[in-house]
Amino acid sequence: MNGLDIDYDRYDHVRPIRWTGDALELLDQRILPYTVVHAACRSSDEVAEAIRALTVRGAPAIGIAAAWGVVLAGRGLETGDPVDAARQLEPALQRLNAARPTAVNLAWALTRMRRVLAGAGRDWCDALEREARAIEAEDLAANRAMGRAGAALIASGSGVLTHCNTGSLATSGFGTALGVIRAGVADGRIARVFATETRPWNQGARLTVWELAQDGIDATLIADSAASHLMKTGQVQWVVVGADRICANGDTANKIGTYQLAIAAKHHGVKFMVVAPSSTVDMATAQGDLIEIEERDPGELLSYKGRRTVAEGVRAWNPVFDVTPHGLIDAIVTERGVLERPDATRMQALFGA
Amino acid sequence: MNGLDIDYDRYDHVRPIRWTGDALELLDQRILPYTVVHAACRSSDEVAEAIRALTVRGAPAIGIAAAWGVVLAGRGLETGDPVDAARQLEPALQRLNAARPTAVNLAWALTRMRRVLAGAGRDWCDALEREARAIEAEDLAANRAMGRAGAALIASGSGVLTHCNTGSLATSGFGTALGVIRAGVADGRIARVFATETRPWNQGARLTVWELAQDGIDATLIADSAASHLMKTGQVQWVVVGADRICANGDTANKIGTYQLAIAAKHHGVKFMVVAPSSTVDMATAQGDLIEIEERDPGELLSYKGRRTVAEGVRAWNPVFDVTPHGLIDAIVTERGVLERPDATRMQALFGA
Repeated sequence: MNGLDIDYDRYDHVRPIRWTGDALELLDQRILPYTVVHAACRSSDEVAEAIRALTVRGAPAIGIAAAWGVVLAGRGLETGDPVDAARQLEPALQRLNAARPTAVNLAWALTRMRRVLAGAGRDWCDALEREARAIEAEDLAANRAMGRAGAALIASGSGVLTHCNTGSLATSGFGTALGVIRAGVADGRIARVFATETRPWNQGARLTVWELAQDGIDATLIADSAASHLMKTGQVQWVVVGADRICANGDTANKIGTYQLAIAAKHHGVKFMVVAPSSTVDMATAQGDLIEIEERDPGELLSYKGRRTVAEGVRAWNPVFDVTPHGLIDAIVTERGVLERPDATRMQALFGA
Repeated sequence: MNGLDIDYDRYDHVRPIRWTGDALELLDQRILPYTVVHAACRSSDEVAEAIRALTVRGAPAIGIAAAWGVVLAGRGLETGDPVDAARQLEPALQRLNAARPTAVNLAWALTRMRRVLAGAGRDWCDALEREARAIEAEDLAANRAMGRAGAALIASGSGVLTHCNTGSLATSGFGTALGVIRAGVADGRIARVFATETRPWNQGARLTVWELAQDGIDATLIADSAASHLMKTGQVQWVVVGADRICANGDTANKIGTYQLAIAAKHHGVKFMVVAPSSTVDMATAQGDLIEIEERDPGELLSYKGRRTVAEGVRAWNPVFDVTPHGLIDAIVTERGVLERPDATRMQALFGA
């Protein structure tokens, strides 16, 4: 993989988050790929609502959006005193933090913004903007590094299966798991790309294959439940996914269905790779069963575009994440390095304080 | 389970197949549950097209529909000679048989109709009608017997997960796997019922929970990919599914995703039950990898109600069945009896010629 020359500009066609100087423009992921529209947020509460409503989604992207939300909240204040600003901003930060519970990147970004504020002087408002910009730039750099490192694990001629959307739309650009796939395809290592639909929100069907089509990367969409049958055919050597939270022992929360893919991969001898920036690592949570799993509106399963598609009176259960135990994971790829066969000891060595 | 008094009339609200005396009325399963309409078929080719287009679906139901298709074809002939009738009917039988490749009940029903014709006299046309009626009646009796036998395997207080639709809509009535669930709920053994959406055709979301809602049976719909997470919570003790073909060694073809559920069930110590009439058993096929797996139009994944939902240029792979190896199956329930831990020897003992 050394010397691989990736033309990153080629992957720059999708910008989910744009800071205009006085507003945060978010590519509305609820209506892609039918309609490509940026929605402008002019307050931190509008950003919190956009995160809650999935206008912006993907663990790294919601961290970045939240950081810009703090910038917007700061602009509304008149004070030159950073201590006073911190006190006044705290309710907005807490509302941002409460927008979604599972991805740790949200809390991580807000912690960074709080720290900057605590160390800032009278220019605290500019300091917040610099920090938001840094969070975004570091994420992009991390994705490019992870792309190379993850692709280097994949043998030439392999097929890969991915789940949900972990591309430019979920990050500052290039993507996490999708970054590995982009790098692996650019390098010629990856010969076949499969993407699941990813019910109920269809991130795979609506977002991932849309991104890949714009790259000119040939991808094949499958139903979520066709993954095991696909693995049995021998066309897939790696499952490559992102993460919303990686615990201290390597247990990983990610989109519902990830756990099922990991079980199926183990059954078939297919390798399983998790790709996420270190901002996704939560060393304060010892293991996966301590993670709060977000349950969303059952309506996501019961209707389509506001019209009921399931018989009246039927209930649905809609957990949108699950936890994959570290024993089912062959590699965790972060910008700090690759952990093969992750466990608490290896995690501590790489991410311990 | 002995002495269980099930009020079968209660489950009679859904009649997918109705013979009117000169037409076959099929409840159009493509538009349920929004619209409840029977489509009338007046020729065997219309029946073949209805099978191909999924107006009628479910392995037992397509066998029954095909038998009535032969009756319709026979009515068009003037001959009193059954040998002449058989010769003239053969092309229609072959078109019916070609309508769908995976479910063996279709070929089984046509074989029965051919045999009756071979043994009939001048009243061959009435004999065909009597045989179609017998096939339908035997299926209903088989479902009721399987319901009792399958439910008897389930410990009191259990939760069950089912996949696809195996209810009245897929059969002559009561259902196969759903018949077991109905009997188990009536008996108080089953405390919780979960149903998968069953992408891409949503048989679970559109058909199964609709049937159960009309029964007053409380069911919870989940995304296909939430099954493993559900199993981890301990709420499910059995996965109960139907079958489209059961081979001589117990390997079972069923709706795409069944294999994935079986792998997940094994991983969690959840039991796995296949429920199907003996017409689904194909002793001529030694093992699962010899079964032709139907692939349907990728459009089922790429559009919704005729409107493209996935980016242009994206391909999809749409196998609609998969094969669950017998080693992942705890019990096969047929009207001839229950096979626990099925294998070639036990299958031969119950179904050998």
